[in-house]
Amino acid sequence: MDIVAADGPAARIRIVLVGTQHPGNIGSAARAIKTMGLHRLVLVAPQKYPHNEADMMAAGAEDVLNAAVEVATLAEAVADCRLVLGCTARSRRVQLRELRPRDAAASVHAEAAAGGEVALVFGRERTGLENEELQLCHAAVHIPANPDYSSLNLAAAVQVLSYEVRLALLGEGGDVTPAAIAPVNPDAVPHAELEGFFGQLGDTLEDIDFHKGRAPESAMRKLRRLFVRTGLDQKEVRLLRGILADAQRMARIARDRGDG
Amino acid sequence: MDIVAADGPAARIRIVLVGTQHPGNIGSAARAIKTMGLHRLVLVAPQKYPHNEADMMAAGAEDVLNAAVEVATLAEAVADCRLVLGCTARSRRVQLRELRPRDAAASVHAEAAAGGEVALVFGRERTGLENEELQLCHAAVHIPANPDYSSLNLAAAVQVLSYEVRLALLGEGGDVTPAAIAPVNPDAVPHAELEGFFGQLGDTLEDIDFHKGRAPESAMRKLRRLFVRTGLDQKEVRLLRGILADAQRMARIARDRGDG
Repeated sequence: MDIVAADGPAARIRIVLVGTQHPGNIGSAARAIKTMGLHRLVLVAPQKYPHNEADMMAAGAEDVLNAAVEVATLAEAVADCRLVLGCTARSRRVQLRELRPRDAAASVHAEAAAGGEVALVFGRERTGLENEELQLCHAAVHIPANPDYSSLNLAAAVQVLSYEVRLALLGEGGDVTPAAIAPVNPDAVPHAELEGFFGQLGDTLEDIDFHKGRAPESAMRKLRRLFVRTGLDQKEVRLLRGILADAQRMARIARDRGDG
Repeated sequence: MDIVAADGPAARIRIVLVGTQHPGNIGSAARAIKTMGLHRLVLVAPQKYPHNEADMMAAGAEDVLNAAVEVATLAEAVADCRLVLGCTARSRRVQLRELRPRDAAASVHAEAAAGGEVALVFGRERTGLENEELQLCHAAVHIPANPDYSSLNLAAAVQVLSYEVRLALLGEGGDVTPAAIAPVNPDAVPHAELEGFFGQLGDTLEDIDFHKGRAPESAMRKLRRLFVRTGLDQKEVRLLRGILADAQRMARIARDRGDG
């Protein structure tokens, strides 16, 4: 029996593969996570799946593969998660906070041990995660690869991260950078509940004419990032939505007066 | 440019693959080590090599593959090494000291930084390293896998160890268990020079009739392990061989008297 119990914190950790191109990599990833005592695999719109190459590469981890959940979007895959970490080659496009694998694993452990659902997200073989997908992540994880040749195979990246998560679950993670770990809000609402808030926030920006002709996407992207990272709880969401409602009310009055 | 300089300690670290069965794994291993800033690959009697599957899986690490050295035995592969670590699934057959990957990486770094040649050795996909091969190793490295399913893919194991070596070279290895690191004898003789000593030791045991009818292999295995682990320097080898010579001389005199 593995001393990392399958029904302990490990049961709240899912490995999410987004848009995987080669089915063999899905099988190899299943094998990689099982060797490290993890077992939950979520596939977001895999390009070819099911596929015999996936079965072949799983080599004894068919149980992980057979239990894998398939969904259409990353938002669905992480809807109930309180911590979502995206594995990236260093990205200059999105200003996400970047964690070392070891610090990321410590965060994963802390959140899962506190009862939260956690996702470790891996993008497409060639192109990684899209900006929109990274916006669903609380932080990015970067494996400190050789910058002249940083293209880890997908399953190799899954292996390294799963290895660090296992060390953390075994209590052998070691020298974690305390400042690098996300402050965990044990009462943070799951992702899906933020969407209503973001919808209202977007409406409010329109109502108060914040954009003034500029495209609204850039501001919303920054705001999403900010609030996703923060880990809002129910009361905070209610508070903020109350503020938005008042701002919207004022804007309506102002517009009515302007019209009048 | 990678901040782990290719001509620094990394240049003294070789990854040795013994008896690899699937050529694709050789290519994947080349890719894995290159992503971690290493570049020296030694192939001991690969079953199918060169092979187009190796080239395919190398995917941009062809330079590592093309520079790979092919030899017939592990003894040749590590003849000039001062530190040889064998990656194993936990083995009960051979009583080698066992290091965690992180501690192993710290040893590798310390030895390579002190100017020594270092080898990280990986066995066959199914059967690992043979006992005779493990006897050439100063210590074993064990990736703490799920005991119910510990079969890491060969390239995945190479990736995890290379990752830890990279962290050590970057100075980010962290919490090393000091007692676990091999005491490095900066003047230890390379492996090949021990063979003359072992030869004389074997002769001496015969001469003094140590075995008394038992098979000599078991005692020699234990003695090899002991002296390989110790890291003997030139003076110590000379001292020990002097002792052996005297023991042999006495045995000869005793035999002559018995004959007389």
